[in-house]
Amino acid sequence: MVKINENFLTMKKNYLFIDIAKRVKAFSEANPDKPLIRMGIGDVTLPLAPVVVEAIKKGADEMGVRETFKGYEDSGTGYDFLKQAVADYYGSFGVSLSLSEIRINDGAKADCGNITDIFGDDNTILVTDPAYPVYVDSNVMCGRRIIYADSNEENGFAAMPDESVHADIIYLCSPNNPTGSVYTKAQLEEWVSYAIKNEAVIIFDSAYEAFISDPALPRSIYCAEGAKKCAIEMCSLSKTAGFTGTRCGYTVIPEELTVKASDGSEVSLAALWGRRQGSKFNGVSYPIQCGAAAVFTPEGQKQTRQAIDYYRRNAKVMTDTLTELGIKFTGGINSPYVWLKCPQGMDSWEFFDFLLEKIQVVGTPGEGFGKNGAGWFRLTAFGTYENTVEAMNRLKKLFS
Amino acid sequence: MVKINENFLTMKKNYLFIDIAKRVKAFSEANPDKPLIRMGIGDVTLPLAPVVVEAIKKGADEMGVRETFKGYEDSGTGYDFLKQAVADYYGSFGVSLSLSEIRINDGAKADCGNITDIFGDDNTILVTDPAYPVYVDSNVMCGRRIIYADSNEENGFAAMPDESVHADIIYLCSPNNPTGSVYTKAQLEEWVSYAIKNEAVIIFDSAYEAFISDPALPRSIYCAEGAKKCAIEMCSLSKTAGFTGTRCGYTVIPEELTVKASDGSEVSLAALWGRRQGSKFNGVSYPIQCGAAAVFTPEGQKQTRQAIDYYRRNAKVMTDTLTELGIKFTGGINSPYVWLKCPQGMDSWEFFDFLLEKIQVVGTPGEGFGKNGAGWFRLTAFGTYENTVEAMNRLKKLFS
Repeated sequence: MVKINENFLTMKKNYLFIDIAKRVKAFSEANPDKPLIRMGIGDVTLPLAPVVVEAIKKGADEMGVRETFKGYEDSGTGYDFLKQAVADYYGSFGVSLSLSEIRINDGAKADCGNITDIFGDDNTILVTDPAYPVYVDSNVMCGRRIIYADSNEENGFAAMPDESVHADIIYLCSPNNPTGSVYTKAQLEEWVSYAIKNEAVIIFDSAYEAFISDPALPRSIYCAEGAKKCAIEMCSLSKTAGFTGTRCGYTVIPEELTVKASDGSEVSLAALWGRRQGSKFNGVSYPIQCGAAAVFTPEGQKQTRQAIDYYRRNAKVMTDTLTELGIKFTGGINSPYVWLKCPQGMDSWEFFDFLLEKIQVVGTPGEGFGKNGAGWFRLTAFGTYENTVEAMNRLKKLFS
Repeated sequence: MVKINENFLTMKKNYLFIDIAKRVKAFSEANPDKPLIRMGIGDVTLPLAPVVVEAIKKGADEMGVRETFKGYEDSGTGYDFLKQAVADYYGSFGVSLSLSEIRINDGAKADCGNITDIFGDDNTILVTDPAYPVYVDSNVMCGRRIIYADSNEENGFAAMPDESVHADIIYLCSPNNPTGSVYTKAQLEEWVSYAIKNEAVIIFDSAYEAFISDPALPRSIYCAEGAKKCAIEMCSLSKTAGFTGTRCGYTVIPEELTVKASDGSEVSLAALWGRRQGSKFNGVSYPIQCGAAAVFTPEGQKQTRQAIDYYRRNAKVMTDTLTELGIKFTGGINSPYVWLKCPQGMDSWEFFDFLLEKIQVVGTPGEGFGKNGAGWFRLTAFGTYENTVEAMNRLKKLFS
């Protein structure tokens, strides 16, 4: 008789966004005259940059002509023209990568979830809490032991390593989803040094790096000394260039990142991942890779930066409002997320209902991201400017 | 210390296509004046149909306008417009599917490899031999027990179940890669009945169904009575519409397909897979889904059928030649693959070298697909008509 993977039965049901949808639906049906302002889901609202659209169309045209048609990619890891664009982009903030260290994917989520395949089940997984649910869920699916590092008010929601705790695989995200905190270079180096001491691997999620405006803050874990010895980095164009529905990203696995197998041999993680992807992935659509490459052209950078600046302006409106109201928060400066402490001692869900009923603003209860999210709340800057201003005006009225 | 997944170390190194590439390169360097005709890799050569190109471009344009921009897909399982198109397509050969049974993916390979995630490691996996290497490799990666059903000359390279053998998960592919054999409805029903008796699940790869021209042959496993109780079907537009570099396909998991968990509960495989994909996949690029939907329009069907007919004509040239030469083969009729017995008692690699050196035709040695491929050889009909004719003329000269 076929046996299912029973680890799925132990998974926490992901009620968060279902619960949100239910409550929102109930409210909307009862109050059809009160339109909502949605600041909950981390999706973007601005369209693709014109150069990106043109590049996708040009790629599609090439697919329609026999001489320029592209079938299977030789490597399945991305075309060199896009890898070179990514390498140059990393170069712009001081990180040197060879093309063979870069693998193009259909967004960070797949690689972030699938990377578990190359590791054994007998690893201890360290996840900062609160966190993007994929880190935990993808490891629960393999029945792995997960421990947590607390991100909380005391450490500015930027968890640091505890030298008394051992971990084998460490998930970090900076700028952080959901808390908006950003690690400094020194903090990343502390994590790198902890990982090297523990012979651990760091999975670094840099999906929000484009929101970093402070040049002193690291845009990549490879800005930290020694990181190429212990870290895999995953990034996406979802937030950098509004690719949430277009789907393209990249994973970096340094050539020098090796792990000792039980037979004593040094195994390259890039080779293992290549073997994994060789059997379970066939590359990203050619027109989409064309669109992705356009993001990194001078005109593409100009156009996509305009969108980032638009969201930054939203974040500024939000953080100014919270500051004015005396509500504590992290993020919103080098991050599209504003993570705020629920006022008047409300818990996450009380505050959710309160905002929904009083001012029709939808956010995300922090406890959906882990226990340290209790009493906290996430708002995103990805909405329209008009809605963001309106939501903040309503918030001001509500609390002043 | 981080532990790798040691199952990777036990994987057979995939030397086949590397070896082929090496031998081809050595020959080409030694004989720069002798251009090769490549009939080895299963990639297509005709460009995307014009309606598909236009649909991708229209989708890209929509992404560039705020009002029609698409971010994350709500479900991540595909837009209803595409699911409906797939459902209607299945309806055209008598299979009724609800939209919730269809999941859009970026080609069959990913789902085919990733489906292992929802099953336990203590299943016995049955693979027909020879076979597409992903079935074996994706299960070796999880350390599962694999047994084989022989496809050989005696059974027309269409393995049938052995009632004395127990299996929990069964991989079938029809029309078959590499042998080109096609199961009849009665044969599929025998497999379905075996699966139900064993409480097993069939993973059915129908990637080449568009090549079936005989209306009596089943285009889907769901043409077989009872299959919805035991089978998952995976298909792709790679061969149907030349999407090898465009990347879109679909997986069907029937609503009634449930498995008993160890706690006695009936678990829906569609729900398990939904949970898996919810954590590790974020849907297919919107413009690509637009292009995929265009395949199923009347004009799209007309245009893509023209390409299929073009490849069918190639296959006819090939099978006519083999028949004339008295070389045994399977496939080539309802399949783009021609699977031939190496003449004069040559083994697969001898025949590979012989064709390369004598007539500069590159094929694939059958033993690369499993032990029953020894002494057999795969040629594909995906080349140009001119090259196919030329290759067959050279073959005729060589053997007559």
